Order: sequence, then structure tokens, then C-alpha cells
Amino acid sequence: MKYGHFDDLKKEYVITDPLTPRPWINYLGMNGFYGLISNTAGGYTFYQDAKLRRLTRYRYNNVPTDFNGRFYYINEEGSVWNPGFLPRKTKLDNYEARHGMGYTVVKGEKNGLEVEVTYFIPLEDTVELHLVKVINKSNKTKTFKIFGAIEWALWNAEDDQTNFQRNLNIGEVEVLDNTVYHKTEYRERRNHFAYFNVNEDISGFDTDRESFLGNYRGWNESEVVLKGKSNNSIANGGSPIASLEVEITLEPNSEKTLIFQLGYVENDEDKKFSSENVINKEKAISFINKYNNLGSVNKAFLSLKGKWEELLANYQLVSNNDTFNRMINIWNQYQCMTTFNMSRSASYFESGTGRGMGFRDSCQDILGFVHMIPDRSRERIIDLASVQFKDGSTYHQYQPLTKQGNANVGGGFNDDPLWLVAAVSAYIRETGDYIILDEMAPYNNVKGTEEPLFNHIKASIDYTIRNKGPHGLPLIGRADWNDCLNLNCFSKTPGESFQTTENIESEAESIFIAGMFVKYANEYRDICLATNRLDEAEYVNKEIKNMSESVLKHGWDGDWFLRAYDANGNKVGSKENLEGKIFIEPQGFCTMAKIGGLEFGKKALDSVDKYLVNEYGAELLYPAYTKYHLELGEISSYPPGNKENGSVFCHNNPWVVIGYTTINDANRAFDLYKRNAPAFIEDKSEIHKTEPYVYSQTIAGRAASNYGEAKNSWLTGTASWTFVAASQYILGVRPQLKGLEIDPVLPLEVDDVMIKRRFRGKDVVIRVVRNQGLKGKLEVNGKLTNEKVVEVTDSIKEYEVIAYI
Amino acid sequence: MKYGHFDDLKKEYVITDPLTPRPWINYLGMNGFYGLISNTAGGYTFYQDAKLRRLTRYRYNNVPTDFNGRFYYINEEGSVWNPGFLPRKTKLDNYEARHGMGYTVVKGEKNGLEVEVTYFIPLEDTVELHLVKVINKSNKTKTFKIFGAIEWALWNAEDDQTNFQRNLNIGEVEVLDNTVYHKTEYRERRNHFAYFNVNEDISGFDTDRESFLGNYRGWNESEVVLKGKSNNSIANGGSPIASLEVEITLEPNSEKTLIFQLGYVENDEDKKFSSENVINKEKAISFINKYNNLGSVNKAFLSLKGKWEELLANYQLVSNNDTFNRMINIWNQYQCMTTFNMSRSASYFESGTGRGMGFRDSCQDILGFVHMIPDRSRERIIDLASVQFKDGSTYHQYQPLTKQGNANVGGGFNDDPLWLVAAVSAYIRETGDYIILDEMAPYNNVKGTEEPLFNHIKASIDYTIRNKGPHGLPLIGRADWNDCLNLNCFSKTPGESFQTTENIESEAESIFIAGMFVKYANEYRDICLATNRLDEAEYVNKEIKNMSESVLKHGWDGDWFLRAYDANGNKVGSKENLEGKIFIEPQGFCTMAKIGGLEFGKKALDSVDKYLVNEYGAELLYPAYTKYHLELGEISSYPPGNKENGSVFCHNNPWVVIGYTTINDANRAFDLYKRNAPAFIEDKSEIHKTEPYVYSQTIAGRAASNYGEAKNSWLTGTASWTFVAASQYILGVRPQLKGLEIDPVLPLEVDDVMIKRRFRGKDVVIRVVRNQGLKGKLEVNGKLTNEKVVEVTDSIKEYEVIAYI
Repeated sequence: MKYGHFDDLKKEYVITDPLTPRPWINYLGMNGFYGLISNTAGGYTFYQDAKLRRLTRYRYNNVPTDFNGRFYYINEEGSVWNPGFLPRKTKLDNYEARHGMGYTVVKGEKNGLEVEVTYFIPLEDTVELHLVKVINKSNKTKTFKIFGAIEWALWNAEDDQTNFQRNLNIGEVEVLDNTVYHKTEYRERRNHFAYFNVNEDISGFDTDRESFLGNYRGWNESEVVLKGKSNNSIANGGSPIASLEVEITLEPNSEKTLIFQLGYVENDEDKKFSSENVINKEKAISFINKYNNLGSVNKAFLSLKGKWEELLANYQLVSNNDTFNRMINIWNQYQCMTTFNMSRSASYFESGTGRGMGFRDSCQDILGFVHMIPDRSRERIIDLASVQFKDGSTYHQYQPLTKQGNANVGGGFNDDPLWLVAAVSAYIRETGDYIILDEMAPYNNVKGTEEPLFNHIKASIDYTIRNKGPHGLPLIGRADWNDCLNLNCFSKTPGESFQTTENIESEAESIFIAGMFVKYANEYRDICLATNRLDEAEYVNKEIKNMSESVLKHGWDGDWFLRAYDANGNKVGSKENLEGKIFIEPQGFCTMAKIGGLEFGKKALDSVDKYLVNEYGAELLYPAYTKYHLELGEISSYPPGNKENGSVFCHNNPWVVIGYTTINDANRAFDLYKRNAPAFIEDKSEIHKTEPYVYSQTIAGRAASNYGEAKNSWLTGTASWTFVAASQYILGVRPQLKGLEIDPVLPLEVDDVMIKRRFRGKDVVIRVVRNQGLKGKLEVNGKLTNEKVVEVTDSIKEYEVIAYI
Repeated sequence: MKYGHFDDLKKEYVITDPLTPRPWINYLGMNGFYGLISNTAGGYTFYQDAKLRRLTRYRYNNVPTDFNGRFYYINEEGSVWNPGFLPRKTKLDNYEARHGMGYTVVKGEKNGLEVEVTYFIPLEDTVELHLVKVINKSNKTKTFKIFGAIEWALWNAEDDQTNFQRNLNIGEVEVLDNTVYHKTEYRERRNHFAYFNVNEDISGFDTDRESFLGNYRGWNESEVVLKGKSNNSIANGGSPIASLEVEITLEPNSEKTLIFQLGYVENDEDKKFSSENVINKEKAISFINKYNNLGSVNKAFLSLKGKWEELLANYQLVSNNDTFNRMINIWNQYQCMTTFNMSRSASYFESGTGRGMGFRDSCQDILGFVHMIPDRSRERIIDLASVQFKDGSTYHQYQPLTKQGNANVGGGFNDDPLWLVAAVSAYIRETGDYIILDEMAPYNNVKGTEEPLFNHIKASIDYTIRNKGPHGLPLIGRADWNDCLNLNCFSKTPGESFQTTENIESEAESIFIAGMFVKYANEYRDICLATNRLDEAEYVNKEIKNMSESVLKHGWDGDWFLRAYDANGNKVGSKENLEGKIFIEPQGFCTMAKIGGLEFGKKALDSVDKYLVNEYGAELLYPAYTKYHLELGEISSYPPGNKENGSVFCHNNPWVVIGYTTINDANRAFDLYKRNAPAFIEDKSEIHKTEPYVYSQTIAGRAASNYGEAKNSWLTGTASWTFVAASQYILGVRPQLKGLEIDPVLPLEVDDVMIKRRFRGKDVVIRVVRNQGLKGKLEVNGKLTNEKVVEVTDSIKEYEVIAYI
């Protein structure tokens, strides 16, 4: 069942039923000012940090669901409704929500009155704009009122919902002309405030929630809205809000557009006040004036659209498969950019009050957006390297505002260092910019410890080499990629964090990290060779060989790769186990790394097929744990089929997809890709529940009663890895150090393929042609070659490539 | 305006309008299992720790307000309603909620059907009982359904509302017969579960919130309830709930009572399961069987009532003033016991997820409940002493479960040590138990550091003596009693905690601590004398004299006592200041301490009267700060008239009341007492907003636009101090080391006074008789005396005292 459809031309997903199984959301903002917005206009807005600078209040996992947002109420002669259906839930004659690239349009119609609200954040300013277009489609003059309403958060989103002894006493506002200014704590230490404005004379306002709603009433039954008359309340403590009331009269078949602004402003310490305790509104008023007319608003909207056209233009696919095209061209790349902006901080599943940037997450995210924003990827790589320790280990998280490692979480996740190699390698392959290796970055952000980035990635490689266990395999530490496989934790205390509690020192080993090492040490070796570090290349080659041998000797279980050895030296992910016999991660990674040549990979992937693949992809393990295993940790704490305990944990599926392409199995690669690529399962939305245009973290596995239900959409490493798998391996357009490798592994069902790729400043247009005779050859600007790699040179601006398959 | 009335005979407050300005709540439970319940049956239940063992989910500051609770829905032929009005909000023919001592009764009537729900927790078990009595008052047979519904919290209340990535995947239940078992995380590390049961065959159940409510629906519009048919849903992740459906047919004029149970059970590690992953329900079933009949439930209810009769019997007043009687006899003592159970952890203003037990708070709370539960006060004193450091300073908070000092908050609040002296002194005066001084208690809970309690209180006294500033006055440290007067903080960072952020080292001094020192060093001196520590008595006498002289020399501003010297040596609370010229705290405490005799006190209290007293009591300071003062900290961060910045901060008002009795001004003492004693301002409930039966922390001052609005009801030191002021100073029945001092300071309007006081195991009955000739004398068991103190002896069991005034 579907709740809408794709509009590929506009790059939008169009929702036609407001009662989606979950709120289906979108993101506004590109440059530090952000909004989350659902198909019913729920959500919230923040500046830079979703915890510390929350502008508007949002309640997670609340009932009714998604009742905080930027809502517009229409009161036409007592008939009260919202164009986005919620919160009033009045039945509409028409409803439609369109999620586009950085904007959302919510439209409703009732009794011949259409109201369309367009929400977006201009590229350069800290203002969320809401264009409210009203059209009288009837043949009568209509007079009605619009109430635009938001609820302010008291800045720190965590404190906002816990410290009521203080918070119920501090709310303050100013109201001037058509603007409500939210100035809570501005009088004391804050130098920032927010405002809500409309470019039209108001007939009333409210700033006190209790006054606006009435006691014991929800957002669906505001006394003010229902009676159609504001109380002009001034908040003093309690819960400050902003409601602006505008009265409108519209002739038949005429329209009018109001512009509402939700803005954020900072003032210098000495310019905070214009007079005694009165906010200096200069900057706010300059925003207000800038966006008070449709001309400038439309211009800003076009700039935003242009920016997205430019970003997405770096990789564009034309093929016979529209669904594949839209995943590649629009939604997968869009989701990758969202992980750049948000990391894992704020979605409808991530409350935005918790963790900082994950080291591992951020490194992997780079793989998905480096082709769109190489410069900002470069910056992030330096930030990431700067939280590494001198011994090569890293903090597991860092705070985006301070860029300091998060000491509460600490380090000891032994895959972390290698992800830095992956990110640097991807960056250089995309850009050819070897200079980054000479860029200085400190260790643990300590001044004076700066060393070239190359030393950092060498430290990563050496860290793994130095930290091996009795089987010559990497020590796992607190955990590797699978944060929930905690082999050194042995936690018995309820509620204790498996990731941060004290660990024992054991020799538990990870075959997954071994696979990672072989893959990324290979890439590191190539970088060494390309930069004439020949001794280092030789050294690391030897270590690759050692590691591969250890995997084949101690990490192979007969039909698949083992997952690990636990603290007692017992196998994890082996036939010997009663539960958790096979894990997905090493099968994908060891195959990608080609450990033992392709034979092992083929066998391993056959086992994946046999035990792990369900309707929605490949499950993380099989069979799911039915008991808590003290020696395995959090993975066995989840009910079977959920999360790490046997769901389709989507992040690792593309590793298997890439594995299939590695063994040249085009059909199985594309088949697995399709099983959870959201656009391909759009018609199962009532089961899948989350958005059909972006990936989710997990899809409940066969062992769960809600088999097929997805959770944690948007902020997942699945975005980057699926884009890598599809764009670089299935479509086979793969940046290499020397140039752009072109090596598609396409099933018959995907045909008429043309790819436009912007690469190192050049336009490369690739057509894929099936030709048994020329199979495997490339034709580059008319010249046939057996080389797979197109080397771009300064002298040639455009490349036309035919890839014969 | 009133929303109900007192029923003194039943010791209940009766609410007749469900739409009280705020939810008006009550507490269930006495011994580690607790519930908060509002007049509409909102609230939640927890075991021991409101953060770590939350049974049911509650959302603070939500709209609609107070929509989480233990709700009973009636569906009679499609007419759906709740006896407590919320959440369905169907208009009732009759509504009434009765908050009694440890129980609450919510009753509603609709179409001749009356439903009365009695909520209480038996003294000895971890079960909340809900007696649902239905009466068919009509002359037709009625058939209807009852749905009892709660929402489970996933144990850790903080994590429950932030960590959705995990929490939406872990919910698990079992359903057996008429019981829903909540077993989230039981399969892994938890050894505890909860259950919801009814003693009647059910016609259906639900355990999945989404299934029960329907998507985008609130608790007021459950699809299941509205259609009158359960889905028998089994939660798998998401939000587990428990709804039990019972079908009832009632003949005209007949009634029936169902018993619902919300219980908590712990199992030993090796007895967790009865079979593979199935909860061992033995203990739960034993509770279920114990309370499945009205006989045992009524017995438990009578035990609870008996317990309260016994507790309150320790101080009972009969007078011509019913309002005064009910404050003294019922509600003020009841609130004191609540502060014993809850400290400051869980109310409708305290989210229960934050801080531990306050050192200062808990010491002061003892003053209010020591006469009811001397044994448990003794235990708590030893706990408190054990978080003191060897140098006399103390942690500011400690965790009730571990009893360890809270290192995150730390110490350095320089009044803290002296409150321990106050608590020990109050305990000995109540009990005559000097042995407590020999009780061993460690410092900072380090084994091997144990010393007698006497050494701890000496350390407190010496700490103050050792830590004085340039004027010979005590250094204030981070703050004294007024947590928001932060003279060493100088915080410029928004959101930074004023209490825990790094402080400078300065010589800022507190006149308030000086007053405290003189008062409690006097009490300490008396203890020394009584225990034959004569040298120590002499030593401390000298220090009292020094301190008093310093106050008179450097702490007197001409018409009132100064508040402090700031870090720069500038006066705080002086005529010299533009804002905050006069503070309340030193006026009360220095007068109580009789510094400089009574003349200074008289003058100081005249100034209180002149500048601070408003309709609702005495404001904390005047004039309120209109700017943020870096050198004063949080106090100046609140908008004028709010919280510490010039509200009536009720906690300190009784100090002034006691001050008035000290200067023998009975009229002003009682007048100030009445201004915020809740029962006395019941008819201003629409302004006051919080419960008219318990004190709140603050009442907005004249500088605030919501002047008169109270906030933070229930968990405030106001409870203990007002009880001390009223019972020991206005009524003048005051435990002393030697016996019970009787020295009433009563205005004419309070007359016909008889007090029953249980003191050191004896019954003392006091009648107050106005007699100009005998004024000031006591008649003890028929014998006239000039002594004020009745010394009780083992040989005499009952004392009849006439106090002539």
C-alpha cells in the first residue's frame, strides 16, 4: 500500500494521505540552521546544535504523535482546519504534502479555500520561511482568519524537558508590530534570541501557551483559534509561544500570499540592548525586511533549488529503470547530504539531545558525499584526524561545536582507526588531492602535537597491526562496527551502557576488523605507492599477507567467515554455536577484501543467501539470540529479530551487494540492493512504515512479530554505503587514485544506462552498451581500450565513454 | 474562587471541579513504592527511585496537561467517559475527587451509572490497588464495558524519553489470564518486572499503544475504547501498555467492585524464569491472590488509615480556628512526611530524573517530621553525616540508593555543615537520645574513617569558624541557603549551571550563615553542656560572641541586616545598592539568633514589613533585579518577581514568623503565617493555582505580571519550617533538651486552644488559657510553675498542662 508517489521531475515525494504510518519527514537548511518537518508540518527548528540551540519545542514518542510543529490554523466562520490536517484533524476536501530538496510544501483545501504552505530555509540566512498562499476557489467572497503558531523551546532541549523548577519561571517575550520576539534568558547570559513574524498587519497575537490553548487543552482545540480571537497574552514564565492572527478577505478566484518568518539572531555582547532590557532588533529587522516580499523570497527559493541541482549533478543516471534512477539521482544522494548536516544528531528517532558526531559514522558518511562536497569533506577529515590519539586509537565520538573528543564515551572501539584510512582514501580517489596527506593535524586536539595527516593514517594501520590476539587477528576492544557485540563488557547491571561501562582486558578478536584491515591496508598501500613511500608499501604488504593468512587459518568456519573469538577464546558466528551461527559483517567485508581470492567469498555469500536473506534484505545474524549472553553483550539484549539481534540492519547490506559485484554476480547484487532500497518497496509502506524515499537503520527480521517494519529512518550509514554500492559497484563508476574506473556489474533488467559524472572538474558521460564481442572494453572519446580506468587530464574537459559489458 | 473544600473529619480535600488551574495531586505509598496521582487520576508510579525504576510513563509540561495516568474508561452503548473526567473529557453528571492521607478517590457519574475509583498502596507491599466500584443508580439493567489502561515506562525515566533508537525496539510483555506482565529488558539484565491485573475475567486486552489508540490519536480517543472492543495486541517494541477490558451487567440499584492491581516484583537471579524466557510469576501471583478480594483490600486500607492516625496523633490541635487546625493537624504534617519520602525528587514540578537528596534539604526536612518518625530521622542523620568530609564541609547532594555523595555537584555550599547541627539538635530535643552522639559515621563514606557523630557536628561548627572572611563573617562559598546567590561564579556562558560550574576563590561573606552560626552554635553549646563537654562549651561561647560582634559591626545596614559581601568586598542587600537593597534571609535568622538582643531584630522586622511583605507573604528581596549581575549570579537571572528574584519564596517566611514570636509580636507572626498557609488562601485558588492544601516553593511577587501565582508545590523546605514556626513558636510547644517548652505567642483571634502532643513516649495535653494574672506561668498536672519547660519523667505517663498567656 502506498500513501503517495514520487514526482521525479520536481525531485519530490508527494504524500496524499496525511495519516502515514509514521510521520514522514524532510529536512530544511544547509548551513547551520536546520528544521525537521513532517508531512503534516510537525517538527522543530534549531541553530547549529540540536541540543543547545533548540528554537521550537518537540516531544518525541508522544501521543497524539507529531503534535508539535509550525501549524497554520484557518478559522472560516467557525470551521477550523489545518492545511496539513494535524493537529485539528478536520477532514479536508484535498490534502497534499510535497517533500523536495530542502523544502516542503503542505497544501489543504476546505470549502473552496485552498491553503498552501511552503517551508524552506534560505541558503545564507538563519531564517525559516513559511509562505502561506491562500486561494479562494469558490465564487463567494471569503473572510477568514489565519493563526500561525509555534511553541518556543527554552534553548537547551534537554534542560527544557527536565528542569521545570527553573524553566517555568524564566520565559520572556517582546511583541512589536507583527513580530513576537523570544528572549528567554537574553536578559542574562544569552546573546541570541528568536522571532516569529508575518509580513502583514496582525489582528492579534498570543505568547502564553496556557492563554492560547486554554487549560487541559491540546493543540487541536485551542480556545483562541476556536473562538477566532486572540488574547494578546504576554508570557511571563510558563511556556512561551508565538501565535500571530491575520484576518483576510478574498474575492472569488483570487489569492494572496503571507510570508511568516521564524528567525534566529545573535548580537554582540555590547550591542544586546537598544534600551533598558529591550532587545536590539536591528539584525532581526534586517531579516524581516529582506524577506518581507515575494520577490526576494522567490529568489532565495530559486537559489536553494539551484544549489541542489548543482550538488546532485555530480552523479546522474539515465536508465530504463525509473526507480533505480530516482534512488541514484535524487533520494540516496539527498540522504547522504543529510548525514553530512546532521550526522546522527536529530531525526524523528534521534532526539538531538544525546551524542556528538561518531568517529566511525562520520568517516563512513564521507564515502557518500565526498563527490558532492569535496572541500567540506576535506575539513571534516582534518577534524576527525584531530581527535585521534598518537597511538592510532581514537575517541569514539566528538562534539561538533567544540571539536573535542567526548571523554565520557572514550575510545577503544578498535575498528575506528581504520575508518579514517577509508575516508582519506575515498577523498584522494575523488579529488586526486594528495596534498591533504601533508596537512597538519594534532593528536587529541593538543596544540603542538600536529603531524601530517599521512602519519595519522599510518598510526591507524599500525594500531591494528600492534593490537592482535592469539590467532593473529585484531583485538576487538569495546566493539567494532557492531556497537552491540560487546565481548569485553560482561554487564550484569540493568540500564548500564554496554558501550561505556568498564571493560575487561581480554584477547577477544574480530574477523570483521581483519577484513577491514585487508581492504583498507590495500588502499593505504596504493597511496604509499602513489606517493613514493615504497618501504612503507612493502611493509604493509607483508602485514596484509599475514592478516589474510590468519583469517583463512583461524577465521574460516567451513562455509562462511567467523565473526569473532570471545574473551574466553570461543568462536562467535560459527556452526558450533546454537544461536548466532552466522553473522553478516565478515561475509561482506572479507569478500570485498578478496581474502583467499574469490572462492571463499563465493562460498560465504552463498551462505548469506541461504541463512540470512529475507524479503527485505539480509539479516545481521542467524539464528537470533533468544537469551541474554553475558559474554556477547547488547546484541543479545534485543528481542529476536530486532536491531542487531537479527533484523535487516541495512548498513551492512551494501557490503554484501559489493561482495556480489566482487564475485561478478550482477543478478544477486541488484536483487539484494532492491530488497530494501526504499523506492523499490514503496508499495509495502503499510508494513515498512518509515519513509519510502530514504533508508532506515533496521527492518525487523523474520524472528520478530513485526517482520518488515523499519525503524530509525534518515540518519544511518546505510545512506553512504548504499550509494557507494550502487554508484561505484553496480553501476561501476568508481574513483581510483589514477582516475575514474568504469566497471559496471549490471543485471539484464537494468538497461539503456547513461551516467553523467562530474569528476575532478571534468564532465564524464558514460554509456553502458551490451556487446559480447567488446565486453570489458572501454571506448574513451572514441578510442577503444582494455584499461578500466579513465585518467582525466587538464587538457580535456569532457569525456565520452562507452563501457561495453 | 475555590474548586473544592476541606473535609476535616475524613482528613480529605474534596475537589468538585475537575478543571483545577493545575493538576492537584496527592501521593500514594509510604515504604519505597510510590505513586503520584492528580484529581483526574493522572500521574505515575515508581519503585524506590523515580528515575531508575519508573513503572509508568508520564510527560511533564505536556499539552494536553496530565494525560498520562491510570485511567478507567466506561463505554456504555457508545457513550465513553472517565470517572475522573480526563482524558476523554465527556461532561459528567457528577464529579468528585478526594485526596486523603495516602489515598485518592476519584468518582464520576453519567446516565445513572456511578464509578468510584479508590487508589492506594498497602503499607507492606509493592502493589498499587485501584478499587473500581460501579453502581447502577438507574432503574434499568445496564451493560457496559470498563477499560483500565496504563502506559509502561521502560524503567529508566530519563533514558525512556531520549534513547529512541534503542527503546522502540525492546518493549516486551506477557499476557496470562487477567494479567499483563511488563517484562522489558527482563530477558537480559533486569530481575524485576511489573504487572497490571484485575480480579475478574477479562473480555479482551491490549499491550501495544499504537494498536490501542490508533495512529495519531491521543488517550482521549482510543480506537479500542471507542469501538468497545480490544485488539488483544501483543507489544513488540514500540510503546508497551496494559489495557484490560471487563464487561459488566448490573441490575438496577446494584453495585459491583473490581480490584485492579499495578504491581512490582523482583526475582532472584536463579529464579527469574519458570520455563524458557517465561517470567517466574510466583511472587506476582501471590500478590494477585492476596488482594483479589475486598476483605483483604479493605483490611489493607484500614491499616493505612491507622498508620496515618498514629503518625498525626503526635501533634494535634483543637482551637476556635478550623483553618489553623487543619493545617496543623493534617496537611502541614502530611506534607512534611511527603518530603521525608520524596525529598525533592518527584512532584509535578520535579521530574524525578535529576538530583539526589539535598544535604541541606534533608537536614531541614527532619525538623518537620522528627516528631512523627524519630527512628527514621535517626537513620537519615547518620546517612547525612556519612557524606560529610573530615574538614566539616559536605557534599551538597547524595544519591538515596547508593548513599554516596554526588561528585558531579560537589560541595562548597558553606551553610551545609551547620544544617547537620540543626538536625542533630532537633533530634535530641525531640527524643532525649544523646546516645546518637556516640553513633559512628564515616567521612565521605570511606570505610575506616568512622568517628562519633559528635565529632561530625563539631567539624561543622569548626568549619564555619575556620572559614571566615575579612569582616570576620563566614565565607559563602558556592552559595548558602540561597542557591541562586552565587558570589563566586561570574558565569557568562548560557545554560551553564551556576551551582556546579567552576568558582573563583574569593572572600565573599554571608551574614545569613553568620546568623545560622549563632543560632546553631548556641544549640551545640547546650548539647555540650548537657553532655559535660565544658571546655568545648566555653570555646564555642567565645566564637558565638565573636560572630555576633562581627555581625553587629559589619553586618548591620542601619535598618536591617546586610545579606553579604560580594567577591569585591561590596555590600549585598544594602541601602547602597540600587536593586536588591534588602534580603529576607538574614532578617529572619539573625532575629531568631537574637543577635544584639531584640532591638536589632525589631528594627529588621519592621523593615521586612515595610519593604517585603505583600498580600501573599514576604518577598525574598526588594527591589527585584532588572538586570543580570555577573557578580551575583542566578538570583539576577530570573525575571523580576520570579523565584529567588523577589517572589515570596515561602521557605524563608517562617523564619520571619519565628522572628516575630521572638520579639513577642503575636499578631504579625500569625498574620504573616496566614498569608501563604494554603488553607488560608483557598478562596484565591484561581490566582494561586497550586493545591490549597500544601505549600508551594514560590508565589510570584509584585514585580511579576502573574503576581500571586504559586509554583513548585509539595516538595519544599517550606513544609518543615512552617510546621516548626506554627507548632513550636506560634503555638509554642517546643522540644528542648530538658523537656517540652511551652510558650505560646498567640494572637487574640486564636482561642480555645488545646494541643495534644506525644513527646518522648508520654502524652502531653496542653490547654492555653488567657489570664492576665497568671500570664507566663504553667500549671503542670495541677502544679503552678514559672518554668517554661515540662520535664517528662518515666514515672508519669500523662501530663495535663495549662499554659497561661
